[in-house]
Amino acid sequence: VKVHDLPTPALVVDGPTFEANLATMSAALPGDRLRPHVKAHKCTSLARRQQAHGHRGFTCATPREVVGMARAGLGDDLLLANETIDAQRLRAMANCGGRVTVAVDSDATVSAAAANGIREVLVDVNVGLPRCGCAPDDAARIADLARGLGLDVRGVMGYEGHVYVFPDRAERSRATEQAMEFLVAAHEKVGGDVISAGATGTFDINTWATEIQAGSYALMDTAFAPMVPQFRPALYVLATVISVNDKHAVADCGLKALGMDHGNPAIDSADVWLVSDEHVTFKPEQRVAVGDVVRVWPAHIDPTVAYHERMHLAAGAQLDADITDTWEIDLRGW
Amino acid sequence: VKVHDLPTPALVVDGPTFEANLATMSAALPGDRLRPHVKAHKCTSLARRQQAHGHRGFTCATPREVVGMARAGLGDDLLLANETIDAQRLRAMANCGGRVTVAVDSDATVSAAAANGIREVLVDVNVGLPRCGCAPDDAARIADLARGLGLDVRGVMGYEGHVYVFPDRAERSRATEQAMEFLVAAHEKVGGDVISAGATGTFDINTWATEIQAGSYALMDTAFAPMVPQFRPALYVLATVISVNDKHAVADCGLKALGMDHGNPAIDSADVWLVSDEHVTFKPEQRVAVGDVVRVWPAHIDPTVAYHERMHLAAGAQLDADITDTWEIDLRGW
Repeated sequence: VKVHDLPTPALVVDGPTFEANLATMSAALPGDRLRPHVKAHKCTSLARRQQAHGHRGFTCATPREVVGMARAGLGDDLLLANETIDAQRLRAMANCGGRVTVAVDSDATVSAAAANGIREVLVDVNVGLPRCGCAPDDAARIADLARGLGLDVRGVMGYEGHVYVFPDRAERSRATEQAMEFLVAAHEKVGGDVISAGATGTFDINTWATEIQAGSYALMDTAFAPMVPQFRPALYVLATVISVNDKHAVADCGLKALGMDHGNPAIDSADVWLVSDEHVTFKPEQRVAVGDVVRVWPAHIDPTVAYHERMHLAAGAQLDADITDTWEIDLRGW
Repeated sequence: VKVHDLPTPALVVDGPTFEANLATMSAALPGDRLRPHVKAHKCTSLARRQQAHGHRGFTCATPREVVGMARAGLGDDLLLANETIDAQRLRAMANCGGRVTVAVDSDATVSAAAANGIREVLVDVNVGLPRCGCAPDDAARIADLARGLGLDVRGVMGYEGHVYVFPDRAERSRATEQAMEFLVAAHEKVGGDVISAGATGTFDINTWATEIQAGSYALMDTAFAPMVPQFRPALYVLATVISVNDKHAVADCGLKALGMDHGNPAIDSADVWLVSDEHVTFKPEQRVAVGDVVRVWPAHIDPTVAYHERMHLAAGAQLDADITDTWEIDLRGW
């Protein structure tokens, strides 16, 4: 089977580009310096490729990701870098057979973790992004509370996602340093071996963290690529042209095949006009015909992958490349 | 089980509002005047409620929707209101056991339908939206081509989705009339019993079509509701507050639980600040606590539903309403 034979819309991984992204990252952040984030791909087969590049620990955003990774034999060191008080899901993680650490940022999340069999936690510290995480000066209290309930506090985590507002690397570096000052200060009081932080966008900036939680680097997308040109987009949605006239063409890839929070996708040598439920309308530079296939590059990978049941690994970037493997996207849902 | 007991994020249908939406529509467009579009909900259990309101025919956007509807015993008259040249999927529809009509707008789509066992078609006419559909003055040629290959041409279809740029009803009416002039003229040359068109947003404007393809009316969303106040939002994502500080709160409903093409969702009595993969950050008017649940109202239903495995039917709008049924979203994918 070649790329252009796939039923569409289909998620396709450009294999050589993907492997180059993994190699670039593992050279920069070898072994346990990287804790790849599986939320970006939700795929244990892909995670196994990351493991082959030397990374044993993984970051997850949902309990189902944690449990699914453990079931797939990838449970050496799983971090739920997110808060939950769902007793059933906490117990499922505690009993999944892997080593599981969860983030906590409040009395309620500490209590829920301790009450449902979780053994290890990181204190999640807000370092500037308006999302989860305790105030930096509350981290020691949270850690004491956790230890008092018998939990092992491995250290701290914090996500400097707000630095993405700075496309300029120097500004992003300054903002990262400010964010990490909060996290390092919290860590001094909390203790433990782990300072977990970051992101693909700060992978070569954040030297304060002991480990980097990067996800986007593996498959990359059009929104992030300009910020970290070391990694190139390696995932597209293959679509078939189903209608053509003298003004535009339409392919069968729409809102239910693409994460749209970062805007429209890109199509090679074309202007994208409109995306609706099952269609993308575009103006190609060169005439296309019904039955032609096109590569639709998502603006944001993570919510794109979450729509699909599987992704196909291609031996090259071209539309006539061989499909060498098909990977179930087996970590969807919650 | 009550609404607030559900594991989150969870899709919840406010049952009485949903039933009122169905009743309002079936009073306006009884029986075969409405061909409900299943792409808005992708759920055969929900379609069965629409059937109970008197509608026998359904509109689909994907082959999987067609085949799934037929398997569920809802195949009296299924229209794929979309183009495909996928031989395997065309054959699956032709052999699904239901009555299946597909849209065609080109030589290639006519040939593919005829070659793969499809028996009935509608000629899809472009009435102004830059998407699929042949030029109005090409419709007769397409119909002749189809009949020459042994296909039964039931009539025409056209989707006046471009009229949504006019929130003002009078302007929308004028634009609909212009669009339908193209479709009626094409129908005069094509023949057949069917003029299929529309949409929830023109359900009480489009008097030219013999049947209206409306989907959004059943569950409605925040983007469409102001345009057709006869229908009220009946679907929300239930989310649990997982982190709170003095500036904002965070709930567990993010980009992978929400269609984002029409922008951020709304939360009752709160300002939504930020949506990321698994989080929504918001500023509540009244203090909330970790463990509270909130209703997150999607801006666009269709791509929201497509992320979820099931939706829960609630006996009322309140968070302590009983869950009376759980419906699999069984028509996802392609």
